[in-house]
Amino acid sequence: MKAFVTGGAGFVGSHLTDRLIADGYDVVVFDNFSTGRDQFLENAQRSRKLNVVHGDVLDANALSSAMRGCDLVCHIAANADVRFGPEQPRRDLDQNTVATFNVLEAMRAHGIKRLIFPSTGSIYGEPEVFPTPEDAPFPVQTSLYGASKLACEGMISAYCEAYGMQAFIFRFVSILGERYTHGHIFDFVRNLRANPDHLRVLGNGRQRKSYLYVADCIDGMMVSFNRATERVNIFNLGADEYCEVTDSVRWITERMGIQPRIEYAGGERGWVGDSPFIFLDCGRLRSLGWRPTLTIRDGVIRTVDYLQKHAWLLEARP
Amino acid sequence: MKAFVTGGAGFVGSHLTDRLIADGYDVVVFDNFSTGRDQFLENAQRSRKLNVVHGDVLDANALSSAMRGCDLVCHIAANADVRFGPEQPRRDLDQNTVATFNVLEAMRAHGIKRLIFPSTGSIYGEPEVFPTPEDAPFPVQTSLYGASKLACEGMISAYCEAYGMQAFIFRFVSILGERYTHGHIFDFVRNLRANPDHLRVLGNGRQRKSYLYVADCIDGMMVSFNRATERVNIFNLGADEYCEVTDSVRWITERMGIQPRIEYAGGERGWVGDSPFIFLDCGRLRSLGWRPTLTIRDGVIRTVDYLQKHAWLLEARP
Repeated sequence: MKAFVTGGAGFVGSHLTDRLIADGYDVVVFDNFSTGRDQFLENAQRSRKLNVVHGDVLDANALSSAMRGCDLVCHIAANADVRFGPEQPRRDLDQNTVATFNVLEAMRAHGIKRLIFPSTGSIYGEPEVFPTPEDAPFPVQTSLYGASKLACEGMISAYCEAYGMQAFIFRFVSILGERYTHGHIFDFVRNLRANPDHLRVLGNGRQRKSYLYVADCIDGMMVSFNRATERVNIFNLGADEYCEVTDSVRWITERMGIQPRIEYAGGERGWVGDSPFIFLDCGRLRSLGWRPTLTIRDGVIRTVDYLQKHAWLLEARP
Repeated sequence: MKAFVTGGAGFVGSHLTDRLIADGYDVVVFDNFSTGRDQFLENAQRSRKLNVVHGDVLDANALSSAMRGCDLVCHIAANADVRFGPEQPRRDLDQNTVATFNVLEAMRAHGIKRLIFPSTGSIYGEPEVFPTPEDAPFPVQTSLYGASKLACEGMISAYCEAYGMQAFIFRFVSILGERYTHGHIFDFVRNLRANPDHLRVLGNGRQRKSYLYVADCIDGMMVSFNRATERVNIFNLGADEYCEVTDSVRWITERMGIQPRIEYAGGERGWVGDSPFIFLDCGRLRSLGWRPTLTIRDGVIRTVDYLQKHAWLLEARP
């Protein structure tokens, strides 16, 4: 079996690549290395089962050429940052919606029938039901990022119906762990290393968030892929708990051994489209036998340790 | 007040244009006349309040130029045919998703804050709740058309959140009436005029469908626009009843005074993405004081009469 992993040199993509190789797959990583890193593929490079193609998912011809001969597509490449949508609305449309269309068309051209796709809990907008199940009341979108992932989910489902494909769609909470390269835990650690005396937190700090450790995330995806049997399989993928932003700040500062002054920008939301409360009902995936191994607190601490040991990641970004 | 109506020379768009002019608006119609008709604007042309711009919503610069100075945008232009999605998947992405992005970006550039947008009951896929309310369980898409309208709804909602816009989104059943130019009632009448002895019906004829007369549809949109106050206002727009395809065939043939042999292609669905049962809960819009004036049967008959009197419409299309 040969798997094609877009964004395979990135945070989640490289972990998935490692796992697919461990499970016996040959893997083609297709990545433009905008946030992907050669270093993240060091493990995978040691096997003879990895082929890395430098390319952009918006280059439909290059994408299609590289995909030829694969049996499974994992479309992980995306603009994965919800926060900057309003500054660059075209980015979510192009890098998520149009890119996913290109992936689906390439699959159709080559007769590839199976797709793994990470979506996001942000597509629930500001839900009224907690923990939020996959069949929650039809939500209203509050972020351009969520809207673009919703567009992808819709297209993927319609392609499954029209062309007999099978999809495994995962609505992620924020993912943490080794190779983590963006998001507010990343920002906190970077800013605290630059100035251990002071930290500015967006919002009032009372936003309730859920996180999942990356190895648990990858395991959840593979459990679903190996066991779920519907044409369109949609799963929430998160922890059975949540924390407040103040909690994660405390865990981070304790781990770093510092006592900064914390300044809160105020407001229930950290940015436009920020959901004040994310807590997903993951019972559907648990019913297949999956469960996370790390608590949110342990996932945060492990991420802090990783970033401290790989400070070049913090410094490489503005 | 000046309204901008994309697709304003088409079926629903020209009726909305007539209504806006009657309500005192100046109107800029922006249409590429791919399915729009000069004849549909004859009423509106008699006023001095209409300005027609030939242009395509995929030409972002032309769209933005034409929109300057308007206070309200009604984005009616779309690929509105659910049936041919699998033959041309790119059409739904471009003509619906990307076109709506262009409209939103032009609105943002000009600081235009209010948008009327027709979506579709097809975004409920194959729902489990009937009549289906706006907050039905999060649906799985079954058609590329529905998926593209879902993508539009999501983007519009996120733009409202990010840029302080206000949207009025309507999930239509099939609309019937004067100037109707596509859909299976259209096909039935055209085919029966060509051959009054025989009619082939896609599916088993037991598909349950809901329809709404176009004047009732326009009235529902304006009631919502004038009375709803949320940032994102989403309304189902349909009749309080449904019929089977066999019913509509019977009404059509009776009105035409013919007794054709009916051949059913078979299957629960007429085409890929066809929903076997569409019946929307329109209580939310009714609570604002709207109600339809014509039954489905009367709407079908009025459509047959219109098409018989305007046979050039039937003949102009393949």
